[in-house]
Amino acid sequence: MSKARLEAFSDGVIAIAITLLALDLTVPQPGHGMLLTQLGDHWPQFAAYVVSFFTLGIIWVNHHARVSLIARVDRTLLFINLVLLLFVVLIPFATSLMATYLTSAPKEADTAMAVYAVVLEGMAVSFSAMFEWSLREGRTYVTVPIDQRRTARLRTSIGTIVYAVMFVVAFISPPISLAIAGFTAVYYIFAPVPRNAAGVSLEELQEPASGQP
Amino acid sequence: MSKARLEAFSDGVIAIAITLLALDLTVPQPGHGMLLTQLGDHWPQFAAYVVSFFTLGIIWVNHHARVSLIARVDRTLLFINLVLLLFVVLIPFATSLMATYLTSAPKEADTAMAVYAVVLEGMAVSFSAMFEWSLREGRTYVTVPIDQRRTARLRTSIGTIVYAVMFVVAFISPPISLAIAGFTAVYYIFAPVPRNAAGVSLEELQEPASGQP
Amino acid sequence: MSKARLEAFSDGVIAIAITLLALDLTVPQPGHGMLLTQLGDHWPQFAAYVVSFFTLGIIWVNHHARVSLIARVDRTLLFINLVLLLFVVLIPFATSLMATYLTSAPKEADTAMAVYAVVLEGMAVSFSAMFEWSLREGRTYVTVPIDQRRTARLRTSIGTIVYAVMFVVAFISPPISLAIAGFTAVYYIFAPVPRNAAGVSLEELQEPASGQP
Amino acid sequence: MSKARLEAFSDGVIAIAITLLALDLTVPQPGHGMLLTQLGDHWPQFAAYVVSFFTLGIIWVNHHARVSLIARVDRTLLFINLVLLLFVVLIPFATSLMATYLTSAPKEADTAMAVYAVVLEGMAVSFSAMFEWSLREGRTYVTVPIDQRRTARLRTSIGTIVYAVMFVVAFISPPISLAIAGFTAVYYIFAPVPRNAAGVSLEELQEPASGQP
Repeated sequence: MSKARLEAFSDGVIAIAITLLALDLTVPQPGHGMLLTQLGDHWPQFAAYVVSFFTLGIIWVNHHARVSLIARVDRTLLFINLVLLLFVVLIPFATSLMATYLTSAPKEADTAMAVYAVVLEGMAVSFSAMFEWSLREGRTYVTVPIDQRRTARLRTSIGTIVYAVMFVVAFISPPISLAIAGFTAVYYIFAPVPRNAAGVSLEELQEPASGQP
Repeated sequence: MSKARLEAFSDGVIAIAITLLALDLTVPQPGHGMLLTQLGDHWPQFAAYVVSFFTLGIIWVNHHARVSLIARVDRTLLFINLVLLLFVVLIPFATSLMATYLTSAPKEADTAMAVYAVVLEGMAVSFSAMFEWSLREGRTYVTVPIDQRRTARLRTSIGTIVYAVMFVVAFISPPISLAIAGFTAVYYIFAPVPRNAAGVSLEELQEPASGQP
Repeated sequence: MSKARLEAFSDGVIAIAITLLALDLTVPQPGHGMLLTQLGDHWPQFAAYVVSFFTLGIIWVNHHARVSLIARVDRTLLFINLVLLLFVVLIPFATSLMATYLTSAPKEADTAMAVYAVVLEGMAVSFSAMFEWSLREGRTYVTVPIDQRRTARLRTSIGTIVYAVMFVVAFISPPISLAIAGFTAVYYIFAPVPRNAAGVSLEELQEPASGQP
Repeated sequence: MSKARLEAFSDGVIAIAITLLALDLTVPQPGHGMLLTQLGDHWPQFAAYVVSFFTLGIIWVNHHARVSLIARVDRTLLFINLVLLLFVVLIPFATSLMATYLTSAPKEADTAMAVYAVVLEGMAVSFSAMFEWSLREGRTYVTVPIDQRRTARLRTSIGTIVYAVMFVVAFISPPISLAIAGFTAVYYIFAPVPRNAAGVSLEELQEPASGQP
């Protein structure tokens, strides 16, 4: 199992999941009120679509940044990756669930948003597991230096913390919970990439450096 | 994040969006009138399908022509590209919306066509932003010469102008507005590719030329 | 626009279309009769699924065999390829239409089967257009020799003839018309590949031979 | 037809099928009872989703391990591969069918589970056929040694045996039958990869070894 195939397969699954998000947008039907009113009433669907779109987009970016460093693929990594994709594929479902309840049943929107947070948490935990797997010597082209590990681990685990917070906030205010997910995606896009002492980002060190284990 | 992955992911998303267009074609049901009559009544769906299909096809062609010139990928480009894909993925939804109202609710077809124009405009503006990003020295293999920039920028921004016109025309005649989108796709297919003084199309200059910055 | 991207995009669209075929299989619902009876009543769906699946599979095989010979991609080829994909993407729709009427409205099954034949004919004609485009000197790595052209053209155009026959037979017996499409797919799988005088199949000559134009 | 394309196309189809699994998860609707109750009532859908997800994931892993060894692609292999994909694409349909009857019509859940087993069996038999095809000299980079064949064949054919057992158990206890499919997927993930005398796994021998036929 070569790394190129792991990447191609994961890319494919994420690309399909991100595109399926739009399948759950309700096309307003004539005779149920003004078109603009109907579109406006479904605002949670559009907000949920944008948040989930960027969340999946960031997962794709981060998945590649991590996998590009990996030197060899084993069965454990394949399994972790499948579990990650299992949650990725559930995102359109959880998005639709959450948007439906935000729109039509505010009373249970907290539960629906909590389910959404659980799916995101599952994805973040799988991603952290992939990161931990990659720390053992020989599994990546460059060994993350000890002083980089804290930063890198923090950056990776921010997702697991934030989505846990989202889960709790869901029971206080579902829209604020959704906003937290949105801000997290934006954070990851512009978060500073960890760099080594020479100022080279770890993501650019994709080829085995001479003298490195 | 290598360029190859940016291309593969974008290709995947565009390929899926273009195929999902056909999911919104209504399969006539027995017992609701003659089959051919039903198919005929749904002509706006087929017209909308063809226009959106070629629009997405052209975006795919132009996206590649542009990305092939790019020398390095940064976070800003990734973000612009995600925004572009966000609108690409909305096209099947907007196509279905517009076709539904053209078929069954002519009174509000203007609003529905305007929503379609907004989605196309969002896509065109994102694409122009990607072009502007690529102009700064060092970001592409070849620097677009000053005398080429006007042509290239005009060619890129034609979409943003045309879809704005489409938006206005939507309120006068939705079918003419749709026809404008169709002609734009055909224009882009056969539009002359900008060439440099040596007669080489910029799209063919994908490898760094020696002596070039 | 490199050939590799043309192939990757076309592959993606065909792979998605072939997978979407199964979305139109009706999942029997409890309370509408015995499960096996319901599955049996929907036999035309399964027959249609198998025929369309192999038809798309063969188009994928033949598309690659042809494109692998192409030396350069121009705007005309891109356009022909988009038209080919336009029909490919319509196949799940036409399959669903035809299966629905074969199952529930035998009276109009002839019209539905004729629509299916029209979509297949559009695909076959686009494919023949791609073949004709490829005949001009310099467009392919190997020029098809004059004595090979007749065989190659015949092999390519068999689809256009057979699907025209299918269209006519649809009005006599829709199931026989469907069977013709099935036999055509099987024929293409096992049809002898045209070979040149040296016994090398044209499909294997993918690299420019020295001394060839 | 190059091997790379066979792999890319198969990857695409499997990635799409695995993502479509989640399309069949029912989004609970407000007004039909408590959200958590509804989600709980649909537990067979989630169990079925997880089992089918890992089953497809494993098929993807094993498909690649096998194809990576193949030295040349012929029409027979293409045909076997298309039949394999035909069953792969049916898995979301069979999963949905089985989950629907497990949830709402326990009386006929046995038949539904048997249909699911038939689809998995079809997939496993196609995969075994691909393995048998690959045994003839010259078709793979490394000839599987005689003493490895029994192990390799056993490993490949475990699926065909297990899914036959699943079929029988479906009529005794559908949930146990589903659990068998789940355990099979987990088995394949962690099953020891067959190795040759030198301790090199056959899957790693992807390049033609010197002196090998």
